[in-house]
Amino acid sequence: MNDSLTIQQYISQTASDVESALQTILPTSWDVPALLKESMMYSLQAGGKRLRPALVLAAAEAVKCDSRAAAAAMPVACAIEMIHTYSLIHDDLPAMDNDDYRRGKLTNHKVFGDAMAILAGDALLTHAFHAIVQSTRQHGVSAEVSLKIVEELSVMAGASGMVGGQAADMLGEQGVTSIDQLRYIHLHKTSDLIVFSLRAGAMIGGATEEQLEQITKFGTAIGLAFQIQDDILDLVGDEAKLGKKTNSDVEQQKVTYPFLIGLNESRAEVERLTSDAKRALDRAGLEGPSRLFGIADYLMKRDH
Amino acid sequence: MNDSLTIQQYISQTASDVESALQTILPTSWDVPALLKESMMYSLQAGGKRLRPALVLAAAEAVKCDSRAAAAAMPVACAIEMIHTYSLIHDDLPAMDNDDYRRGKLTNHKVFGDAMAILAGDALLTHAFHAIVQSTRQHGVSAEVSLKIVEELSVMAGASGMVGGQAADMLGEQGVTSIDQLRYIHLHKTSDLIVFSLRAGAMIGGATEEQLEQITKFGTAIGLAFQIQDDILDLVGDEAKLGKKTNSDVEQQKVTYPFLIGLNESRAEVERLTSDAKRALDRAGLEGPSRLFGIADYLMKRDH
Repeated sequence: MNDSLTIQQYISQTASDVESALQTILPTSWDVPALLKESMMYSLQAGGKRLRPALVLAAAEAVKCDSRAAAAAMPVACAIEMIHTYSLIHDDLPAMDNDDYRRGKLTNHKVFGDAMAILAGDALLTHAFHAIVQSTRQHGVSAEVSLKIVEELSVMAGASGMVGGQAADMLGEQGVTSIDQLRYIHLHKTSDLIVFSLRAGAMIGGATEEQLEQITKFGTAIGLAFQIQDDILDLVGDEAKLGKKTNSDVEQQKVTYPFLIGLNESRAEVERLTSDAKRALDRAGLEGPSRLFGIADYLMKRDH
Repeated sequence: MNDSLTIQQYISQTASDVESALQTILPTSWDVPALLKESMMYSLQAGGKRLRPALVLAAAEAVKCDSRAAAAAMPVACAIEMIHTYSLIHDDLPAMDNDDYRRGKLTNHKVFGDAMAILAGDALLTHAFHAIVQSTRQHGVSAEVSLKIVEELSVMAGASGMVGGQAADMLGEQGVTSIDQLRYIHLHKTSDLIVFSLRAGAMIGGATEEQLEQITKFGTAIGLAFQIQDDILDLVGDEAKLGKKTNSDVEQQKVTYPFLIGLNESRAEVERLTSDAKRALDRAGLEGPSRLFGIADYLMKRDH
């Protein structure tokens, strides 16, 4: 990929590459009931920043400056987007958050019904693991590395990861009173998949254990900063830019960082976490393009 | 395992081994919200014949008569039970079949609520892939074999496998008119996971491609026979032995094999499929104990 791209251009470019790759993620030879396939693709193609796949690809390139590393990381980039998409479909269900719209489009169950939305989510989650294996089948990534990525995804997306964060959020609604509880929810609902994306890309690029450790610190910090920035934007963001109503956290009496520590301290925390993240990345001593630094800044300064 | 066990004893013994293994499937060091863990374990420990895990273990032993093969297959046996359990939790939801009881116990969502039941299912599905990796981490199965098992599970449990069968069943309710449609549903809702169980066990045992092909034929045939027998038992079975009401298919106007081809022809089909299955197994030329033959007979003759 062209090194002279701005971060904004890089993220747009990878989003468009990922969208192309997602279009053919279900082999045409497979006998999938038409409506199930339609339901899966409806949500998979519903847009979004495609931030997690960009992290997979940027991390792979940062470790090994080689277009083959980025190509080999593409199936994993698609896998993480399938996991993210399934979690949104299930979260939007009437039994969970009961949302009718997401990014201005009707949510999956409003179009296909609750039962099909549950099944489409299940199928996307299952298919994410299929996509990971394709890094080995199509791009020669070693079986050891692909298996390690399967293992990490099964932890980071599972009971002690994303699903655990979601359960804690649900159980704690209105009952969250401490910054520690809120931190647990944010870490698992958001940071875990961000850390996974970075580690998986870096592993495909051939990162050392020491590099992986620093990349994990980077991911944990930007993941938390990302979520606090979300809380801030919900309070003071521009509805037109965000594409959604602000103040929903206040209306739903959700406990957030600004609620617990105030707006100024929350902003300071985002800056502190971003600095911590960059320091960790410095220590990783990566050779490839330094897009991860740019992504950290982009996330901190984003207004949507 | 003792070779002199009857098939009934073998199935009971493996069920009890699998239940022990399932108890520690979530590492105690993991930080899982207590209620999520409770919800997952509630359904995982709700009993059942544990038929699929028995097939994994029997297939591993049939290929390689070695207790280490059975030990290495145990994590995969647990994985398949997690997949089976998650599918039951999601199927029982109000949005799907809306069942209040299963095997005489309240269904997951009746105890933990719909949201937690959805999350517990998601977590079990995700954790099944974690269990597979343990065959490599704890028992030295090669990464290539574990990755192949991950790949096959992602197909057989996914959009063109079990979830596809479930979607087709849901979409076709009351609209199924041909034996071909019914066969698609049975093959994917039931046979796919049975075939996966056998192939995964056989791969851990070190089966050749030719052996895997015959084992696949065996699995497809006993899977279909199993489902037709289910249809027959719903019509003429003993409610006390089955532990559930009979004639539910008729009451729900479900299209079944007996409905489409009659009771006698359905019974003949079960026998034909069982013979086909055994012939395929003969051709596989396996060296280990021939428990798979016994299991085929057991399934054909079962009354619950």
